[in-house]
Amino acid sequence: MLQTLQNKTPYQQLESRMARISALNDAAAMLHWDMAAMMPPGGYAARTEQMSALNATTHSLMVAPDMGDLLDAAQDDSTLDSWQQANLKEMQHNWRKATALSEDLVEALTRASAICEEKWRSARPDNDYASLLPELQSLLDLVLETAQAKADVLGLSLADAMLDDYEPGGRVAEIDVLFDDLAGFLPDFIAQALENQARKPQPLIPEGPFPIEKQRALGEKLMATLGFDFNHGRLDISLHPFCGGVPDDVRLTTRYDEADFTSALMGILHETGHGLYELGLPRQWRNQPVGQSLGMSTHESQSLLIEMQVCRSAEFLEYAVPVMRDSFGGSGPAWQTENLQRLYGQVKPDFIRVDADEVTYPAHVILRHRIEKAIFANDLSLKDLPGAWNDGMAELLGITPPDDRLGCLQDLHWYAGAWGYFPTYTLGAITAAQLYDAAKKQVPQMELEISRGNFVPLLGWLRDNVHSKARSCTPQGILIQATGKPLDAEIFKQHLKSRYLS
Amino acid sequence: MLQTLQNKTPYQQLESRMARISALNDAAAMLHWDMAAMMPPGGYAARTEQMSALNATTHSLMVAPDMGDLLDAAQDDSTLDSWQQANLKEMQHNWRKATALSEDLVEALTRASAICEEKWRSARPDNDYASLLPELQSLLDLVLETAQAKADVLGLSLADAMLDDYEPGGRVAEIDVLFDDLAGFLPDFIAQALENQARKPQPLIPEGPFPIEKQRALGEKLMATLGFDFNHGRLDISLHPFCGGVPDDVRLTTRYDEADFTSALMGILHETGHGLYELGLPRQWRNQPVGQSLGMSTHESQSLLIEMQVCRSAEFLEYAVPVMRDSFGGSGPAWQTENLQRLYGQVKPDFIRVDADEVTYPAHVILRHRIEKAIFANDLSLKDLPGAWNDGMAELLGITPPDDRLGCLQDLHWYAGAWGYFPTYTLGAITAAQLYDAAKKQVPQMELEISRGNFVPLLGWLRDNVHSKARSCTPQGILIQATGKPLDAEIFKQHLKSRYLS
Repeated sequence: MLQTLQNKTPYQQLESRMARISALNDAAAMLHWDMAAMMPPGGYAARTEQMSALNATTHSLMVAPDMGDLLDAAQDDSTLDSWQQANLKEMQHNWRKATALSEDLVEALTRASAICEEKWRSARPDNDYASLLPELQSLLDLVLETAQAKADVLGLSLADAMLDDYEPGGRVAEIDVLFDDLAGFLPDFIAQALENQARKPQPLIPEGPFPIEKQRALGEKLMATLGFDFNHGRLDISLHPFCGGVPDDVRLTTRYDEADFTSALMGILHETGHGLYELGLPRQWRNQPVGQSLGMSTHESQSLLIEMQVCRSAEFLEYAVPVMRDSFGGSGPAWQTENLQRLYGQVKPDFIRVDADEVTYPAHVILRHRIEKAIFANDLSLKDLPGAWNDGMAELLGITPPDDRLGCLQDLHWYAGAWGYFPTYTLGAITAAQLYDAAKKQVPQMELEISRGNFVPLLGWLRDNVHSKARSCTPQGILIQATGKPLDAEIFKQHLKSRYLS
Repeated sequence: MLQTLQNKTPYQQLESRMARISALNDAAAMLHWDMAAMMPPGGYAARTEQMSALNATTHSLMVAPDMGDLLDAAQDDSTLDSWQQANLKEMQHNWRKATALSEDLVEALTRASAICEEKWRSARPDNDYASLLPELQSLLDLVLETAQAKADVLGLSLADAMLDDYEPGGRVAEIDVLFDDLAGFLPDFIAQALENQARKPQPLIPEGPFPIEKQRALGEKLMATLGFDFNHGRLDISLHPFCGGVPDDVRLTTRYDEADFTSALMGILHETGHGLYELGLPRQWRNQPVGQSLGMSTHESQSLLIEMQVCRSAEFLEYAVPVMRDSFGGSGPAWQTENLQRLYGQVKPDFIRVDADEVTYPAHVILRHRIEKAIFANDLSLKDLPGAWNDGMAELLGITPPDDRLGCLQDLHWYAGAWGYFPTYTLGAITAAQLYDAAKKQVPQMELEISRGNFVPLLGWLRDNVHSKARSCTPQGILIQATGKPLDAEIFKQHLKSRYLS
């Protein structure tokens, strides 16, 4: 069972190391889920040490002195197939990034993230941005130091190096083109959508209370119907819903509101999209870099394809609303399919990104992207961030947050060190529209099947065209293979028009 | 914040390494809890890889080429205080054991344990010992290979080397003396206790159902009253109840029976004893070897002191029975304190160790200890284990299991590689009796306070005399400091006589 070094080619030795690193990363992923969903508050300090030790360990495995030689030697291996070549390319890229960083820097960044995140957890309810400014500055300094080091070895700009962790091969200049286009399109479009909405009856909100246990049961039923395998996953509760765990053990979380089941349910369906992607990654590449999920825009495309494209559609609701009625014994006008469709298609400029509808959501992302660019370029200092935030909200959505809780303190990302991440949400929305458009054209009965509660054709298409590819090609490569063209915001805009102006 | 190597003494360098190892061990402990309490079955293979990678990593840190030199150099450091000296001694001992083992052996053992444990999980309900014999033999071979390697470097017999992992400084010859004494005492004593019991009214069993949520709430209430800090711990459900996690984040588990709350409740109180020990370990030594819990007999002494000595006593039940009545709205003769005291003091020779009363429990342990000795000495082969088990049960308890589910398949330990562990349960019971006897003498109001629901004096005594010592002295050292004498089975026998012959 145990193979000795002597029998292994350089590529095989690299695979063994990557398997070890992957297992330790998986351990960290499970502990991260536990931290959000299970851990009592007093476990925080010990958990920080655990995460920090895991990160430092994988880092030191990655920068072992003979890695460069092994990578060079593997490069000359003519027996590698295309997946192995792609795997080697991932290793090389990861190694270049890792060697750019000292173990001390990695450990300091992990610790600073944990400290700032913890601070944020109390500063947000207290509406006290100023109190975490020192921790945020320390963290940002380390984030920038890290990004600059990566930028140097990868030959990228600082901003592109920040993006690289989340979007392989992504370029800020390309995002700017898309986002400027959307920023030009959105204000008028939002006004039109609101006008159109005003001409229709105001949707009724089903009356609760909706016991959490019943909400969970409904969520799990729809998850299973969509194809989520509970032998390889769970659904739990956390303050900030997410999809965690590992591909063989996917941990989804949500939060429930007993007065309103509709929002948590759509949240569960969103995370289910992420979870289906993880579950669908190729089994034989589980523990190798090429077998990981591709990037955040692809990941988000899968959650948004399920939530926005599929589950808020008339076809899905035709199937799902009777299931909702059954779950809660609902009846009357608020429980009519047409009403819930209007409710799930409401447009309303508001302060909180995670509660935003799909029309106003890109504005939230564009705001964050612009702020990040200004900070990376030293055009904005952290102490002026709340002001810049509020100005941006006024410009993009015409509203001004009354406090930082509803403004720059609302999202965890920056306070956990995830700078450069936000654009991927809207890249994901654009990707989702383009993928679903292609899927419907390629499988003509798909929407009919969805309206009957049959998601096999949809999941099959996603498995074949996205999930099973893992990191064997780029996000653009996946789009071109699946849809015949690179990322194209027109399809997203068309989708918005057809859903919100009809 | 980050200290460079140059500024550190050899001892300080060792402390840094131990902190890293401790954090990785803590990560493994959390994942082990998750595996039992949360993980969906399909997560097993991935989890095995994670645990295996963590074990291999800590092992390779422990056997780093310069460890021997660092340990030698630290030995000459005259500035070390007594805790640091004890810490260094622990490091040396652990290092000697680790260097005895190759990384391949450690990884093979971890994997074989996981495979055999998984096999046991289906073989037990199927009553199919034969089906797991190949996996059990492979595992035992690796266990023995490991133990022999440790025995060689530590200058111990194979059996003492097996014990060393669970009982620091323990010797099988000393256990044999205690166990032979108990094996001589028990059969007559059990007969007398049964006779005495037969003269009293048969205890009534409170009638359910008892909803799990109410049972959990009662358990958590009593845990908190005993001093369990829920800011640093949780209570969950698993098939096999245990105390897991880490000292800053203690994860207790139990299993509930809706028809009978009394058994799960006592199970929770048992685990609470373990948990209080973990929570009470010295904060400043959390991440060092000397700061870990001492050994299994000490750990078990803490759970048995709480469960057997305290929580099944008349004083505790005087306080707790009204709380139980309140929780379930119980009334009538079954809910009288005297009745529940009789119920909690029932003696009944039966097949399952974990359900055994404190009188018959040592017989279960002595059986396992004798089987282990025979296997280690090559006097018994695994295929003959079920027969030896049944013969031993007949001899020690006068009953014969109808099948292996109620016989040699009942406990996980052997199937997870934990050979040599069982004796510590009864060492723990003897230790618990001796410690509680001393505590009552040293704090005369203690039982009165317990009957009033005040556990502060008890917990204070345990913190001072056991918990805060961690591994700064041996189990015998703790007993001598706390009670004035080494382990003495007479006090345990006296306890049994006073509780079961009165």
